Amino acid sequence: MKTKRSERLVDMTHYLLENPHTLIPLTLFSKKYESAKSSISEDLAIVKRTFSERGIGILETVPGAAGGVKYIPKMNRKDIKNFIADLIEELNHSKRLLPGGYVYLSDLMGDPKWLRRIGRAIASQYMETEIDSVMTVATKGVPVAQSVAFYLDVPLVIVSRDSKVTEGSTVSINYVSDSSFARVGKMELSRRSLNTDSKVLIVDDFIKGGGTINGMMSLVEEFDSEVVGATVIAENIYKGKRSTSDYTALLKVDSVNSDDRTIAISEGDFYSKNM
Amino acid sequence: MKTKRSERLVDMTHYLLENPHTLIPLTLFSKKYESAKSSISEDLAIVKRTFSERGIGILETVPGAAGGVKYIPKMNRKDIKNFIADLIEELNHSKRLLPGGYVYLSDLMGDPKWLRRIGRAIASQYMETEIDSVMTVATKGVPVAQSVAFYLDVPLVIVSRDSKVTEGSTVSINYVSDSSFARVGKMELSRRSLNTDSKVLIVDDFIKGGGTINGMMSLVEEFDSEVVGATVIAENIYKGKRSTSDYTALLKVDSVNSDDRTIAISEGDFYSKNM
Repeated sequence: MKTKRSERLVDMTHYLLENPHTLIPLTLFSKKYESAKSSISEDLAIVKRTFSERGIGILETVPGAAGGVKYIPKMNRKDIKNFIADLIEELNHSKRLLPGGYVYLSDLMGDPKWLRRIGRAIASQYMETEIDSVMTVATKGVPVAQSVAFYLDVPLVIVSRDSKVTEGSTVSINYVSDSSFARVGKMELSRRSLNTDSKVLIVDDFIKGGGTINGMMSLVEEFDSEVVGATVIAENIYKGKRSTSDYTALLKVDSVNSDDRTIAISEGDFYSKNM
Repeated sequence: MKTKRSERLVDMTHYLLENPHTLIPLTLFSKKYESAKSSISEDLAIVKRTFSERGIGILETVPGAAGGVKYIPKMNRKDIKNFIADLIEELNHSKRLLPGGYVYLSDLMGDPKWLRRIGRAIASQYMETEIDSVMTVATKGVPVAQSVAFYLDVPLVIVSRDSKVTEGSTVSINYVSDSSFARVGKMELSRRSLNTDSKVLIVDDFIKGGGTINGMMSLVEEFDSEVVGATVIAENIYKGKRSTSDYTALLKVDSVNSDDRTIAISEGDFYSKNM
Protein backbone atom coordinates (compact mmCIF):
# COMPACT_ATOMS: atom_id res chain seq x y z
CA MET A 1 0.00 0.00 0.00
CA LYS A 2 1.33 3.38 -1.01
CA THR A 3 1.63 5.75 1.90
CA LYS A 4 0.87 9.38 2.38
CA ARG A 5 3.63 11.91 3.01
CA SER A 6 2.26 12.77 6.45
CA GLU A 7 2.39 9.14 7.56
CA ARG A 8 5.86 8.67 6.08
CA LEU A 9 7.20 11.72 7.91
CA VAL A 10 6.04 10.40 11.28
CA ASP A 11 7.33 6.87 10.76
CA MET A 12 10.60 8.03 9.16
CA THR A 13 11.29 10.34 12.10
CA HIS A 14 10.77 7.46 14.50
CA TYR A 15 12.98 5.14 12.45
CA LEU A 16 15.82 7.66 12.23
CA LEU A 17 15.69 8.48 15.95
CA GLU A 18 15.85 4.77 16.84
CA ASN A 19 18.82 4.22 14.51
CA PRO A 20 21.26 7.05 15.12
CA HIS A 21 24.67 7.05 13.41
CA THR A 22 23.45 4.33 11.03
CA LEU A 23 23.60 4.74 7.26
CA ILE A 24 20.11 4.06 5.92
CA PRO A 25 19.85 3.50 2.17
CA LEU A 26 16.99 5.34 0.43
CA THR A 27 15.81 2.00 -0.96
CA LEU A 28 14.94 0.88 2.58
CA PHE A 29 12.47 3.74 2.88
CA SER A 30 11.11 3.43 -0.66
CA LYS A 31 10.41 -0.28 -0.05
CA LYS A 32 9.00 0.28 3.42
CA TYR A 33 6.55 2.88 2.10
CA GLU A 34 6.17 1.62 -1.48
CA SER A 35 7.00 5.09 -2.67
CA ALA A 36 9.23 6.49 -5.40
CA LYS A 37 12.75 7.52 -4.45
CA SER A 38 11.96 11.06 -5.55
CA SER A 39 9.16 11.27 -2.96
CA ILE A 40 11.43 9.83 -0.29
CA SER A 41 14.07 12.44 -1.12
CA GLU A 42 11.53 15.21 -0.71
CA ASP A 43 10.42 13.72 2.63
CA LEU A 44 14.01 13.58 3.83
CA ALA A 45 14.57 17.21 2.86
CA ILE A 46 11.70 18.17 5.17
CA VAL A 47 13.04 15.98 7.97
CA LYS A 48 16.53 17.40 7.53
CA ARG A 49 15.35 21.01 7.68
CA THR A 50 13.17 20.36 10.73
CA PHE A 51 15.88 18.41 12.60
CA SER A 52 18.28 21.29 12.02
CA GLU A 53 15.86 24.14 12.85
CA ARG A 54 14.50 22.43 15.97
CA GLY A 55 17.89 21.39 17.35
CA ILE A 56 17.15 17.67 17.04
CA GLY A 57 20.30 16.88 15.13
CA ILE A 58 21.90 16.58 11.74
CA LEU A 59 20.60 14.47 8.87
CA GLU A 60 23.67 13.70 6.79
CA THR A 61 23.18 12.79 3.15
CA VAL A 62 25.66 10.36 1.65
CA PRO A 63 25.38 10.48 -2.17
CA GLY A 64 25.94 7.65 -4.63
CA ALA A 65 24.71 4.08 -5.12
CA ALA A 66 25.93 2.99 -1.69
CA GLY A 67 24.60 6.18 -0.16
CA GLY A 68 21.69 7.07 2.04
CA VAL A 69 21.02 9.17 5.09
CA LYS A 70 22.43 9.14 8.58
CA TYR A 71 20.91 10.80 11.63
CA ILE A 72 23.40 12.31 14.03
CA PRO A 73 21.91 13.43 17.36
CA LYS A 74 23.20 16.88 18.18
CA MET A 75 22.22 19.38 20.79
CA ASN A 76 22.71 22.94 19.66
CA ARG A 77 24.74 25.56 21.55
CA LYS A 78 21.73 27.15 23.17
CA ASP A 79 20.25 23.87 24.38
CA ILE A 80 23.58 22.73 25.85
CA LYS A 81 23.97 26.08 27.62
CA ASN A 82 20.44 25.79 29.05
CA PHE A 83 20.93 22.19 30.01
CA ILE A 84 24.12 22.93 31.96
CA ALA A 85 22.44 25.89 33.66
CA ASP A 86 19.48 23.66 34.65
CA LEU A 87 21.84 21.03 35.99
CA ILE A 88 23.73 23.58 38.08
CA GLU A 89 20.50 24.99 39.47
CA GLU A 90 19.28 21.50 40.39
CA LEU A 91 22.52 20.68 42.18
CA ASN A 92 23.03 24.01 43.90
CA HIS A 93 19.53 24.11 45.33
CA SER A 94 19.46 20.91 47.27
CA LYS A 95 21.23 19.35 50.20
CA ARG A 96 23.50 17.08 48.29
CA LEU A 97 26.69 17.07 50.32
CA LEU A 98 27.52 13.73 51.89
CA PRO A 99 30.22 12.98 54.46
CA GLY A 100 33.69 13.02 52.91
CA GLY A 101 32.89 15.78 50.43
CA TYR A 102 30.95 13.44 48.15
CA VAL A 103 27.94 14.69 46.27
CA TYR A 104 24.68 12.77 46.10
CA LEU A 105 23.82 12.41 42.42
CA SER A 106 22.06 9.04 42.23
CA ASP A 107 18.62 10.55 41.74
CA LEU A 108 19.72 12.49 38.66
CA MET A 109 21.74 9.54 37.39
CA GLY A 110 18.59 7.42 37.56
CA ASP A 111 16.18 9.90 35.99
CA PRO A 112 15.51 9.23 32.28
CA LYS A 113 14.77 12.90 31.60
CA TRP A 114 18.19 14.01 32.88
CA LEU A 115 19.96 11.02 31.39
CA ARG A 116 18.61 11.80 27.93
CA ARG A 117 19.88 15.37 28.09
CA ILE A 118 23.24 14.29 29.52
CA GLY A 119 23.63 11.57 26.91
CA ARG A 120 22.69 13.82 24.03
CA ALA A 121 24.96 16.64 25.20
CA ILE A 122 28.03 14.43 25.61
CA ALA A 123 27.33 12.56 22.37
CA SER A 124 27.17 15.95 20.59
CA GLN A 125 30.74 16.66 21.66
CA TYR A 126 31.96 13.51 19.94
CA MET A 127 29.67 13.46 16.91
CA GLU A 128 32.59 13.86 14.53
CA THR A 129 34.92 11.47 16.37
CA GLU A 130 35.20 7.86 15.30
CA ILE A 131 34.17 5.82 18.34
CA ASP A 132 33.83 2.04 18.65
CA SER A 133 32.89 1.74 22.33
CA VAL A 134 31.92 3.80 25.34
CA MET A 135 33.71 2.64 28.50
CA THR A 136 32.85 3.21 32.14
CA VAL A 137 33.48 1.60 35.49
CA ALA A 138 30.83 -0.11 37.61
CA THR A 139 28.49 1.02 39.09
CA LYS A 140 27.82 4.73 39.33
CA GLY A 141 28.97 5.67 35.87
CA VAL A 142 26.88 3.06 34.04
CA PRO A 143 23.60 4.95 33.48
CA VAL A 144 25.34 8.05 32.14
CA ALA A 145 27.68 6.05 29.93
CA GLN A 146 24.81 3.97 28.61
CA SER A 147 22.87 7.05 27.67
CA VAL A 148 25.87 8.38 25.75
CA ALA A 149 26.25 4.97 24.06
CA PHE A 150 22.55 5.11 23.06
CA TYR A 151 22.99 8.43 21.28
CA LEU A 152 26.26 7.35 19.65
CA ASP A 153 24.81 3.90 18.92
CA VAL A 154 27.98 2.07 19.95
CA PRO A 155 28.45 -0.71 22.52
CA LEU A 156 28.88 0.07 26.19
CA VAL A 157 31.76 -1.65 27.96
CA ILE A 158 31.64 -1.90 31.75
CA VAL A 159 34.90 -2.29 33.66
CA SER A 160 34.44 -4.01 37.00
CA ARG A 161 36.25 -3.66 40.30
CA ASP A 162 35.69 -7.24 41.28
CA SER A 163 35.98 -10.51 39.45
CA LYS A 164 32.74 -11.97 38.19
CA VAL A 165 32.58 -15.65 37.37
CA THR A 166 30.29 -14.99 34.42
CA GLU A 167 32.77 -13.05 32.33
CA GLY A 168 35.25 -15.62 31.04
CA SER A 169 38.90 -14.62 30.80
CA THR A 170 39.67 -11.10 31.91
CA VAL A 171 42.49 -8.56 31.80
CA SER A 172 43.10 -6.81 35.06
CA ILE A 173 45.30 -3.91 36.12
CA ASN A 174 46.23 -2.22 39.34
CA TYR A 175 45.74 1.50 39.59
CA VAL A 176 46.24 4.24 42.16
CA SER A 177 42.73 4.84 43.43
CA ASP A 178 43.61 7.61 45.83
CA SER A 179 46.96 9.27 45.33
CA SER A 180 46.89 11.15 48.65
CA PHE A 181 46.94 7.83 50.47
CA ALA A 182 48.77 5.85 47.76
CA ARG A 183 45.84 3.46 47.84
CA VAL A 184 45.91 0.84 45.10
CA GLY A 185 42.83 -0.68 43.51
CA LYS A 186 42.20 -3.30 40.87
CA MET A 187 39.99 -3.08 37.83
CA GLU A 188 39.33 -5.59 35.15
CA LEU A 189 37.59 -6.20 31.89
CA SER A 190 36.51 -9.35 30.10
CA ARG A 191 38.66 -10.23 27.06
CA ARG A 192 35.54 -10.55 24.96
CA SER A 193 34.25 -7.10 25.82
CA LEU A 194 36.65 -5.07 23.71
CA ASN A 195 38.37 -5.79 20.38
CA THR A 196 41.95 -4.70 19.81
CA ASP A 197 42.36 -1.46 17.84
CA SER A 198 39.15 -0.04 19.26
CA LYS A 199 38.60 3.67 19.65
CA VAL A 200 37.24 4.20 23.12
CA LEU A 201 35.35 7.07 24.74
CA ILE A 202 35.55 7.07 28.55
CA VAL A 203 32.51 8.40 30.44
CA ASP A 204 32.13 8.61 34.20
CA ASP A 205 30.11 10.48 36.77
CA PHE A 206 32.89 12.04 38.82
CA ILE A 207 36.57 12.83 38.80
CA LYS A 208 38.51 13.57 41.95
CA GLY A 209 42.16 12.66 41.72
CA GLY A 210 41.74 11.09 38.30
CA GLY A 211 42.89 7.64 39.38
CA THR A 212 39.85 5.80 38.04
CA ILE A 213 40.01 7.46 34.64
CA ASN A 214 43.74 6.94 34.51
CA GLY A 215 43.15 3.27 35.34
CA MET A 216 40.69 2.91 32.48
CA MET A 217 43.21 4.55 30.16
CA SER A 218 45.81 1.93 31.13
CA LEU A 219 43.28 -0.83 30.65
CA VAL A 220 42.47 0.41 27.13
CA GLU A 221 46.20 0.25 26.35
CA GLU A 222 46.27 -3.38 27.49
CA PHE A 223 43.73 -4.10 24.76
CA ASP A 224 45.97 -2.37 22.18
CA SER A 225 43.25 0.18 21.80
CA GLU A 226 43.06 3.95 21.92
CA VAL A 227 41.26 6.44 24.15
CA VAL A 228 39.75 9.13 21.91
CA GLY A 229 38.14 11.15 24.67
CA ALA A 230 37.01 11.27 28.29
CA THR A 231 34.11 13.20 29.79
CA VAL A 232 32.74 13.33 33.32
CA ILE A 233 29.64 14.93 34.77
CA ALA A 234 31.46 16.72 37.56
CA GLU A 235 35.00 17.56 38.54
CA ASN A 236 35.29 17.46 42.31
CA ILE A 237 37.56 19.62 44.45
CA TYR A 238 40.99 18.06 44.64
CA LYS A 239 44.07 19.36 46.38
CA GLY A 240 47.09 18.17 44.47
CA LYS A 241 47.95 17.19 40.94
CA ARG A 242 45.43 15.01 39.13
CA SER A 243 46.85 11.91 37.47
CA THR A 244 45.28 13.00 34.20
CA SER A 245 44.12 16.28 32.72
CA ASP A 246 42.90 14.77 29.50
CA TYR A 247 39.15 15.03 30.01
CA THR A 248 36.26 17.45 29.88
CA ALA A 249 33.75 18.04 32.69
CA LEU A 250 30.19 19.33 32.41
CA LEU A 251 30.36 20.78 35.92
CA LYS A 252 32.91 21.88 38.47
CA VAL A 253 32.48 21.72 42.25
CA ASP A 254 33.83 25.03 43.56
CA SER A 255 33.27 24.75 47.27
CA VAL A 256 31.53 22.67 49.85
CA ASN A 257 29.76 23.81 52.99
CA SER A 258 29.50 20.95 55.44
CA ASP A 259 27.34 22.95 57.90
CA ASP A 260 24.24 23.19 55.74
CA ARG A 261 25.31 20.32 53.45
CA THR A 262 25.32 22.46 50.34
CA ILE A 263 27.81 22.81 47.53
CA ALA A 264 28.65 25.49 45.02
CA ILE A 265 28.78 24.25 41.48
CA SER A 266 29.66 26.03 38.25
CA GLU A 267 30.10 25.31 34.57
CA GLY A 268 32.98 22.95 33.74
CA ASP A 269 35.20 23.25 30.68
CA PHE A 270 32.89 21.05 28.57
CA TYR A 271 31.02 23.96 27.07
CA SER A 272 33.94 26.23 26.31
CA LYS A 273 36.18 23.45 24.98
CA ASN A 274 33.64 22.25 22.47
CA MET A 275 31.61 25.13 21.23
CA MET B 1 6.36 32.05 12.78
CA LYS B 2 3.52 29.74 11.87
CA THR B 3 4.70 26.30 10.93
CA LYS B 4 3.75 23.88 8.21
CA ARG B 5 2.04 20.60 9.00
CA SER B 6 4.97 18.57 7.63
CA GLU B 7 7.41 20.32 9.95
CA ARG B 8 5.08 19.96 12.91
CA LEU B 9 4.66 16.24 12.33
CA VAL B 10 8.42 15.66 12.39
CA ASP B 11 9.05 17.77 15.48
CA MET B 12 5.98 16.49 17.31
CA THR B 13 7.02 12.89 16.71
CA HIS B 14 10.44 13.64 18.16
CA TYR B 15 8.95 15.42 21.15
CA LEU B 16 6.53 12.60 21.93
CA LEU B 17 9.22 9.91 21.61
CA GLU B 18 11.51 11.81 23.98
CA ASN B 19 8.71 12.24 26.53
CA PRO B 20 6.98 8.88 26.86
CA HIS B 21 4.27 8.38 29.50
CA THR B 22 4.04 12.15 29.94
CA LEU B 23 0.79 14.06 29.57
CA ILE B 24 1.38 16.85 27.09
CA PRO B 25 -1.29 19.56 26.95
CA LEU B 26 -2.35 20.61 23.46
CA THR B 27 -1.52 24.19 24.36
CA LEU B 28 2.15 23.25 24.58
CA PHE B 29 2.09 22.26 20.91
CA SER B 30 -0.08 25.14 19.78
CA LYS B 31 2.32 27.60 21.44
CA LYS B 32 5.44 25.80 20.19
CA TYR B 33 4.19 25.92 16.61
CA GLU B 34 2.02 29.05 16.81
CA SER B 35 -0.82 27.06 15.33
CA ALA B 36 -4.52 26.73 16.12
CA LYS B 37 -5.59 23.92 18.41
CA SER B 38 -7.73 22.52 15.61
CA SER B 39 -4.65 22.10 13.38
CA ILE B 40 -2.75 20.47 16.26
CA SER B 41 -5.63 18.04 16.79
CA GLU B 42 -5.51 17.06 13.13
CA ASP B 43 -1.74 16.58 13.37
CA LEU B 44 -2.13 14.37 16.40
CA ALA B 45 -4.75 12.24 14.65
CA ILE B 46 -2.18 11.52 11.93
CA VAL B 47 0.52 10.75 14.51
CA LYS B 48 -1.85 8.50 16.44
CA ARG B 49 -2.87 6.51 13.37
CA THR B 50 0.75 6.10 12.22
CA PHE B 51 2.04 5.11 15.67
CA SER B 52 -0.65 2.45 15.86
CA GLU B 53 -0.30 1.10 12.30
CA ARG B 54 3.49 1.02 12.43
CA GLY B 55 3.76 -0.58 15.83
CA ILE B 56 5.44 2.44 17.44
CA GLY B 57 2.99 2.67 20.30
CA ILE B 58 -0.22 4.19 21.51
CA LEU B 59 -1.09 7.88 21.53
CA GLU B 60 -3.61 8.27 24.31
CA THR B 61 -5.94 11.24 24.18
CA VAL B 62 -7.04 12.67 27.51
CA PRO B 63 -10.04 14.97 26.95
CA GLY B 64 -10.99 18.08 28.89
CA ALA B 65 -9.33 21.29 29.99
CA ALA B 66 -6.57 19.47 31.87
CA GLY B 67 -6.22 17.01 29.02
CA GLY B 68 -3.72 16.41 26.29
CA VAL B 69 -1.91 13.49 24.74
CA LYS B 70 0.34 10.83 26.13
CA TYR B 71 2.65 8.58 24.14
CA ILE B 72 2.93 5.03 25.42
CA PRO B 73 5.69 2.97 23.77
CA LYS B 74 4.32 -0.40 22.83
CA MET B 75 5.69 -3.17 20.70
CA ASN B 76 2.98 -5.12 18.93
CA ARG B 77 2.56 -8.91 19.16
CA LYS B 78 4.35 -9.60 15.89
CA ASP B 79 7.35 -7.44 16.73
CA ILE B 80 7.72 -9.03 20.18
CA LYS B 81 7.49 -12.50 18.62
CA ASN B 82 10.18 -11.59 16.06
CA PHE B 83 12.35 -9.94 18.65
CA ILE B 84 12.34 -13.01 20.91
CA ALA B 85 13.06 -15.26 17.92
CA ASP B 86 16.01 -13.03 16.92
CA LEU B 87 17.33 -13.09 20.47
CA ILE B 88 17.13 -16.89 20.62
CA GLU B 89 18.91 -17.20 17.29
CA GLU B 90 21.66 -14.86 18.42
CA LEU B 91 22.20 -16.82 21.64
CA ASN B 92 21.91 -20.31 20.18
CA HIS B 93 24.37 -19.63 17.40
CA SER B 94 27.40 -18.60 19.36
CA LYS B 95 29.70 -20.11 21.91
CA ARG B 96 28.31 -18.47 24.96
CA LEU B 97 28.66 -21.05 27.65
CA LEU B 98 31.09 -20.12 30.39
CA PRO B 99 32.43 -22.34 33.18
CA GLY B 100 29.82 -23.02 35.85
CA GLY B 101 26.91 -23.03 33.40
CA TYR B 102 26.87 -19.25 33.08
CA VAL B 103 25.98 -17.64 29.81
CA TYR B 104 27.99 -14.80 28.30
CA LEU B 105 25.56 -11.99 27.58
CA SER B 106 27.61 -8.84 28.16
CA ASP B 107 27.91 -8.04 24.46
CA LEU B 108 24.12 -8.01 24.00
CA MET B 109 23.63 -6.18 27.28
CA GLY B 110 25.95 -3.45 26.00
CA ASP B 111 24.53 -3.11 22.50
CA PRO B 112 22.11 -0.17 22.13
CA LYS B 113 20.21 -1.89 19.30
CA TRP B 114 19.41 -4.92 21.47
CA LEU B 115 18.83 -2.82 24.56
CA ARG B 116 16.25 -0.68 22.79
CA ARG B 117 14.28 -3.74 21.71
CA ILE B 118 14.56 -5.37 25.13
CA GLY B 119 13.54 -2.17 26.88
CA ARG B 120 10.58 -1.56 24.60
CA ALA B 121 9.37 -5.15 24.85
CA ILE B 122 9.48 -5.28 28.64
CA ALA B 123 7.97 -1.79 28.97
CA SER B 124 5.10 -2.95 26.71
CA GLN B 125 4.23 -5.63 29.24
CA TYR B 126 3.78 -3.05 31.97
CA MET B 127 2.26 -0.21 29.96
CA GLU B 128 -0.98 -0.37 31.90
CA THR B 129 0.65 -0.90 35.30
CA GLU B 130 1.27 2.04 37.57
CA ILE B 131 5.03 2.08 38.17
CA ASP B 132 7.11 4.58 40.16
CA SER B 133 10.56 3.04 39.84
CA VAL B 134 12.47 0.31 38.05
CA MET B 135 14.82 -1.57 40.38
CA THR B 136 17.81 -3.73 39.60
CA VAL B 137 20.97 -4.90 41.30
CA ALA B 138 24.49 -3.84 40.32
CA THR B 139 26.09 -4.48 37.85
CA LYS B 140 24.93 -6.78 35.12
CA GLY B 141 21.26 -5.88 35.24
CA VAL B 142 21.79 -2.13 35.02
CA PRO B 143 21.77 -1.60 31.22
CA VAL B 144 18.62 -3.66 30.69
CA ALA B 145 16.82 -2.06 33.61
CA GLN B 146 17.83 1.40 32.44
CA SER B 147 16.46 0.75 28.99
CA VAL B 148 13.13 -0.33 30.50
CA ALA B 149 13.16 2.79 32.70
CA PHE B 150 13.75 4.93 29.58
CA TYR B 151 10.66 3.57 27.85
CA LEU B 152 8.55 3.79 31.01
CA ASP B 153 10.05 7.19 31.84
CA VAL B 154 10.46 6.40 35.54
CA PRO B 155 13.57 6.54 37.73
CA LEU B 156 16.02 3.66 37.85
CA VAL B 157 17.06 2.49 41.31
CA ILE B 158 20.26 0.46 41.63
CA VAL B 159 20.67 -1.85 44.61
CA SER B 160 24.30 -2.48 45.48
CA ARG B 161 26.07 -5.45 46.95
CA ASP B 162 28.70 -3.36 48.68
CA SER B 163 28.58 -0.21 50.73
CA LYS B 164 29.51 2.96 48.91
CA VAL B 165 30.56 5.98 50.89
CA THR B 166 28.76 8.30 48.47
CA GLU B 167 25.24 7.13 49.17
CA GLY B 168 24.37 8.51 52.59
CA SER B 169 22.29 6.35 54.93
CA THR B 170 21.27 2.98 53.55
CA VAL B 171 18.94 0.10 54.29
CA SER B 172 20.54 -3.30 53.97
CA ILE B 173 19.22 -6.84 54.08
CA ASN B 174 20.70 -10.32 54.05
CA TYR B 175 19.44 -12.73 51.45
CA VAL B 176 20.10 -16.32 50.42
CA SER B 177 22.24 -15.92 47.32
CA ASP B 178 22.59 -19.61 46.56
CA SER B 179 20.11 -21.89 48.26
CA SER B 180 21.97 -25.10 47.30
CA PHE B 181 24.92 -23.96 49.41
CA ALA B 182 22.88 -21.86 51.84
CA ARG B 183 25.15 -18.98 50.96
CA VAL B 184 24.09 -15.63 52.37
CA GLY B 185 24.71 -12.29 50.70
CA LYS B 186 24.02 -8.71 51.56
CA MET B 187 22.36 -6.07 49.43
CA GLU B 188 21.57 -2.49 50.20
CA LEU B 189 19.92 0.62 48.94
CA SER B 190 20.31 4.25 49.83
CA ARG B 191 17.43 5.70 51.88
CA ARG B 192 17.13 8.56 49.42
CA SER B 193 16.76 6.30 46.38
CA LEU B 194 13.21 5.12 46.98
CA ASN B 195 10.20 6.81 48.56
CA THR B 196 7.84 4.84 50.74
CA ASP B 197 4.64 3.63 49.04
CA SER B 198 6.41 3.27 45.71
CA LYS B 199 5.29 0.79 43.09
CA VAL B 200 8.39 -1.02 41.92
CA LEU B 201 9.16 -3.06 38.82
CA ILE B 202 12.15 -5.41 39.24
CA VAL B 203 14.27 -6.08 36.14
CA ASP B 204 17.36 -8.28 35.97
CA ASP B 205 19.40 -10.16 33.40
CA PHE B 206 19.23 -13.67 34.86
CA ILE B 207 17.40 -15.80 37.34
CA LYS B 208 18.83 -19.04 38.66
CA GLY B 209 17.59 -19.91 42.14
CA GLY B 210 15.73 -16.64 42.48
CA GLY B 211 17.66 -15.47 45.54
CA THR B 212 18.62 -12.10 44.09
CA ILE B 213 15.09 -11.26 42.99
CA ASN B 214 13.72 -12.49 46.30
CA GLY B 215 16.27 -10.26 48.04
CA MET B 216 15.12 -7.23 46.08
CA MET B 217 11.51 -8.07 46.98
CA SER B 218 12.43 -8.06 50.69
CA LEU B 219 14.28 -4.79 50.26
CA VAL B 220 11.22 -3.18 48.64
CA GLU B 221 9.19 -4.27 51.68
CA GLU B 222 11.70 -2.55 53.95
CA PHE B 223 10.83 0.69 52.16
CA ASP B 224 7.10 0.06 52.76
CA SER B 225 6.73 -0.22 49.04
CA GLU B 226 5.21 -2.74 46.68
CA VAL B 227 6.62 -4.92 43.90
CA VAL B 228 4.22 -4.73 40.95
CA GLY B 229 6.20 -7.01 38.64
CA ALA B 230 9.49 -8.73 37.91
CA THR B 231 10.97 -9.63 34.54
CA VAL B 232 14.30 -11.19 33.60
CA ILE B 233 15.97 -11.75 30.26
CA ALA B 234 16.69 -15.42 30.86
CA GLU B 235 15.70 -18.13 33.27
CA ASN B 236 18.65 -20.43 33.81
CA ILE B 237 18.52 -24.15 34.50
CA TYR B 238 17.98 -24.75 38.21
CA LYS B 239 17.57 -28.02 40.02
CA GLY B 240 15.36 -27.46 43.01
CA LYS B 241 12.68 -25.06 44.06
CA ARG B 242 13.19 -21.40 43.19
CA SER B 243 12.68 -18.98 46.06
CA THR B 244 10.19 -17.05 43.92
CA SER B 245 7.99 -17.88 40.95
CA ASP B 246 6.57 -14.41 40.67
CA TYR B 247 8.34 -13.21 37.53
CA THR B 248 8.30 -13.48 33.76
CA ALA B 249 11.29 -14.44 31.59
CA LEU B 250 11.91 -13.54 27.95
CA LEU B 251 14.00 -16.68 27.47
CA LYS B 252 14.55 -20.06 29.04
CA VAL B 253 17.83 -22.00 29.05
CA ASP B 254 16.87 -25.60 28.25
CA SER B 255 20.19 -27.38 28.20
CA VAL B 256 23.90 -26.71 28.20
CA ASN B 257 26.60 -28.55 26.33
CA SER B 258 29.95 -27.97 27.98
CA ASP B 259 31.91 -29.77 25.23
CA ASP B 260 31.30 -27.27 22.45
CA ARG B 261 30.29 -24.49 24.85
CA THR B 262 26.82 -24.08 23.39
CA ILE B 263 23.43 -23.77 25.00
CA ALA B 264 19.89 -24.46 23.91
CA ILE B 265 17.54 -21.59 24.51
CA SER B 266 13.82 -21.26 23.92
CA GLU B 267 11.01 -18.78 24.47
CA GLY B 268 10.24 -18.03 28.12
CA ASP B 269 6.78 -17.38 29.50
CA PHE B 270 6.98 -13.64 28.83
CA TYR B 271 5.21 -13.85 25.50
CA SER B 272 2.42 -16.25 26.45
CA LYS B 273 1.73 -14.59 29.80
CA ASN B 274 1.24 -11.16 28.33
CA MET B 275 -0.20 -11.41 24.89
